[in-house]
Amino acid sequence: MASPAHKQPESAPERIPHRAAREHFRWDGVEMRPYKEDERALYKTITRQVLFSDPAMAGELRYFEVSPGGFSTLERHEHMHGVLILRGSGHCLVGDEIRSLNTNDLVTISPMTWHQFRASKGQPLGFLCMVNAERDKPQLPTPDDVARLRKNPAIAKFFDDQA
Amino acid sequence: MASPAHKQPESAPERIPHRAAREHFRWDGVEMRPYKEDERALYKTITRQVLFSDPAMAGELRYFEVSPGGFSTLERHEHMHGVLILRGSGHCLVGDEIRSLNTNDLVTISPMTWHQFRASKGQPLGFLCMVNAERDKPQLPTPDDVARLRKNPAIAKFFDDQA
Repeated sequence: MASPAHKQPESAPERIPHRAAREHFRWDGVEMRPYKEDERALYKTITRQVLFSDPAMAGELRYFEVSPGGFSTLERHEHMHGVLILRGSGHCLVGDEIRSLNTNDLVTISPMTWHQFRASKGQPLGFLCMVNAERDKPQLPTPDDVARLRKNPAIAKFFDDQA
Repeated sequence: MASPAHKQPESAPERIPHRAAREHFRWDGVEMRPYKEDERALYKTITRQVLFSDPAMAGELRYFEVSPGGFSTLERHEHMHGVLILRGSGHCLVGDEIRSLNTNDLVTISPMTWHQFRASKGQPLGFLCMVNAERDKPQLPTPDDVARLRKNPAIAKFFDDQA
């Protein structure tokens, strides 16, 4: 989603110097936003916590967590993602490739590259995602886009594992 | 250090979609830059790895690791830091406060706020740090700045623990 420009406001926002980590990848004073299930099956059982977002910062850092067997939205956009796996394991689609992901791995999503993250069946996949504060809205695939991606057997298997 | 503007270049840079994590918080293809020891004792035994830096990203994500008993530079600057502790434990000075740090804690360094990170004696302190790609240079404290900070006994103790 688009965010306000990262210009210094007239009065500085309240900034909490230290937020202690709680159990299970929660943080003091950070709201967890559970996504509802999507009837089009575009995503499943994923939550979001915004760790850093500030008018003086040009980037934002968010923590997403996908439950075991869940997945993020298949999407693309002009803005980039810089991702670090903080918890668990899974797979991701980046462009035309499926990659196996383990804790602390890095994933770079280039502009206008189809991508989706999927947790392993046995454990959640939690990841940090850095984005520009000012960014375009994600684009969802058309049926033609999905059909084209499915021509790659590895990608078809990746999608079918979500069913 | 100042970085080039985050404008899209004429040709896109090479972007590696996936970098596997190696042991000991290293990453495939990411250079580790050891800092030399500083004879003024401004920092000690700290390394840096730049995880995400791209002309199309307004932020950068770096991983710093302070060896057991080591510490980062005492500094301040206009740009902000968004920090997540990825490994180990330690303490930090933020403004006029000393905070105890544990893995996954968040630290926000506001503009022009004195700050320093220190690893516990028994284990390293590794942390992610998000900054604006375009940013001002850090300012180092004058002897007067240090004397003023030392008037706070907790801060004096924090500094002396580095000796």
